[in-house]
Amino acid sequence: MTSAAVPAPIDPPARLLMGPGPISAYPSVLRAMSAPLVGQYDPFMTDTMAETQELYRRVWATGNDATLLIDGTSRAGIEAAIVSLVRPGDRVLVPVFGRFGHLLAEIAERAMAEVHTLETAWGQVFPPSVIEEAVVRVRPTLLALVQGDTSTTMNQPLDEIGEICSRHGVLFYTDATASLGGNAFHADAWGVDAATAGLQKCLGGPSGSAPITLSARAVERVGARKRIEAGIREDGDPEAADFVRSNYFDLGMILDYWGPRRLNHHTEATSMLYGARECARVLLAEGREAVIERHRVAGAAMLAGVEGLGLQVFGDVAHKMNTVVAVEIPEPVPGDAARQAMLDDFGIEIGTSFGPLHGRVWRIGTMGYNARRDAVLTTLAALEQVLRRFGAAVPVGGGVAAASDVFAGA
Amino acid sequence: MTSAAVPAPIDPPARLLMGPGPISAYPSVLRAMSAPLVGQYDPFMTDTMAETQELYRRVWATGNDATLLIDGTSRAGIEAAIVSLVRPGDRVLVPVFGRFGHLLAEIAERAMAEVHTLETAWGQVFPPSVIEEAVVRVRPTLLALVQGDTSTTMNQPLDEIGEICSRHGVLFYTDATASLGGNAFHADAWGVDAATAGLQKCLGGPSGSAPITLSARAVERVGARKRIEAGIREDGDPEAADFVRSNYFDLGMILDYWGPRRLNHHTEATSMLYGARECARVLLAEGREAVIERHRVAGAAMLAGVEGLGLQVFGDVAHKMNTVVAVEIPEPVPGDAARQAMLDDFGIEIGTSFGPLHGRVWRIGTMGYNARRDAVLTTLAALEQVLRRFGAAVPVGGGVAAASDVFAGA
Repeated sequence: MTSAAVPAPIDPPARLLMGPGPISAYPSVLRAMSAPLVGQYDPFMTDTMAETQELYRRVWATGNDATLLIDGTSRAGIEAAIVSLVRPGDRVLVPVFGRFGHLLAEIAERAMAEVHTLETAWGQVFPPSVIEEAVVRVRPTLLALVQGDTSTTMNQPLDEIGEICSRHGVLFYTDATASLGGNAFHADAWGVDAATAGLQKCLGGPSGSAPITLSARAVERVGARKRIEAGIREDGDPEAADFVRSNYFDLGMILDYWGPRRLNHHTEATSMLYGARECARVLLAEGREAVIERHRVAGAAMLAGVEGLGLQVFGDVAHKMNTVVAVEIPEPVPGDAARQAMLDDFGIEIGTSFGPLHGRVWRIGTMGYNARRDAVLTTLAALEQVLRRFGAAVPVGGGVAAASDVFAGA
Repeated sequence: MTSAAVPAPIDPPARLLMGPGPISAYPSVLRAMSAPLVGQYDPFMTDTMAETQELYRRVWATGNDATLLIDGTSRAGIEAAIVSLVRPGDRVLVPVFGRFGHLLAEIAERAMAEVHTLETAWGQVFPPSVIEEAVVRVRPTLLALVQGDTSTTMNQPLDEIGEICSRHGVLFYTDATASLGGNAFHADAWGVDAATAGLQKCLGGPSGSAPITLSARAVERVGARKRIEAGIREDGDPEAADFVRSNYFDLGMILDYWGPRRLNHHTEATSMLYGARECARVLLAEGREAVIERHRVAGAAMLAGVEGLGLQVFGDVAHKMNTVVAVEIPEPVPGDAARQAMLDDFGIEIGTSFGPLHGRVWRIGTMGYNARRDAVLTTLAALEQVLRRFGAAVPVGGGVAAASDVFAGA
């Protein structure tokens, strides 16, 4: 093939991403992604890594020294936490209230844990007492619990879970991918031992970097399994027999890379680091609580807006995340064709759904940069047009009016 | 902490990265990194994924349908290949001629393979006959062999290895992280079953995305172990008993995500995809063979240049990669202080080294965007100043003159 057959530089279409994530990134995050590269051990690089750790301590509300990034998508963060904390044969308890609970169970199974699940209906969360009862019964090494599951929009209350786990000597891991930055999270106050996230939801960045934080208790567990790889191992370095069955996700080695020893592991993904730093920076510049409040208002407005269009909302709304709403697709509207019309005619993406909800609900997000009045009102205006075109009876202006009222009262 | 304590946007210092990688990215790759995001199943996104696959087929010189990206650093690509191709207990043969051979062995050990290594002195490569003899003796499932090992600068000849593996029914995996794009590589012509790379070397992008290609034979091996995760598994989907012990690196599921089924797995790292696409695009626009030739000339010029400064070169120069040279640190120059002076006074990074070479050689790279005449000459001019300042006797202008001659004759 000749060089004539080479395509043009990337030129994505304009999109307002109002699905369950990924969502449109903050413009300043996109700018940070194109900053020039520096060397892996350049003082600027190691300073930026340390600074990013400090920023994410504030995002997670933790004093955990072991607060860093995993180089991969949010799923990479989950796998790093689980394979590093769980030995083959360890019992892991996973309360499942949506697709991502199944994912935690799946990853723990692949790590050869003895996995016990607890299920509730989609659209519900677990009362802490139910989780405690299962902890007592199963006596797991690790409780792995999703905070916000976009598949159902539910936000599992976590504030009592750490205390339960601590009382029973269980490590508490939570997947905050969809929730962090747009919903309350207090790693230390809630007694969380390990938590992971991604940038592509409320943090307003691209997928590809997974913030993680580990308590001292979790670090101790990881440290007991430490094995430094051949090629850089030195005399006296530990070599545990029950080493982590992954090199890339071995948090012991990753902590040595981010820590004062700066021991070579992977080559840190520099542009993703810059982007992750900027996600935290814009959040903290606006103020952590202010950003969560902005998400709360935008979420409430979107909820009022879809109800103002006469649509039904799926699930226990009292436990809905701020950041995504599941909307029942009304008769006689064809769900996928309507989503396609939103994209083709208005450049707006709303989400489809998984498993039992597939074909039954759309998921509409208000996350990160897009947790904004104009984004919410534009989406509702377009949705009204599309619903009417496909034959649904919708109140004229009902969505925009109801959402506007929420913003006006906020 | 108040928002006043938030740092400024990222603003990296100017650096000319002339180490063994990461190196300075092509400017157009940095621009691509900041392109706006689109949704995960936006037609533009899936088209861009398919287009990127096609571009990398040309980079790898392969017709392999299974040509895609792993979302993580080059090491993530290595681990995905090994854990997906190797079952616990399988024999893996790893000829080790530098640090990254140790890494392949390490990753295979963590995948619970029975690992057999073969070692040669640092600075040498293996004759094909030695590898064949070991293949016959060990009878491995997989031969895992680094192509270019930056720790020693050596470029292992691969052109006869695929035929040897094929004859003995062994899968052939190679790690081309440091070599791809700057040295000859012919996946199909050489009978490679699996190969992985990273962007941060000769491809001229940021670390964080790992191109991978798999032959039909490799895909068959992966497919036999397929298990689709709970939460999206449907009736009739396979669920192999010897499933891959990683979810994130399960190439069976990753192939379903990149393939026509578009089955949800991770959320593709959009900005890294844009960057990876642009790395391939600039390479193919210049021409694959032209880029390799540019690397050959720049590497020959840097070699001549350091010799023109009176420095000794480490290793078997006949088998050196085009893209990096290991230079003996001359008496009485303190290696780390001189590297620091290169960085502080000239903004130029050259590399330190690992293991037996640590403190003994610097590694100077000429990769990707920096495989350029001005980058080579500037580095040599600065190195001359620094060597002299630290007390080495160096011929006045000897480095720049020798390198200029190479460029003039090219």
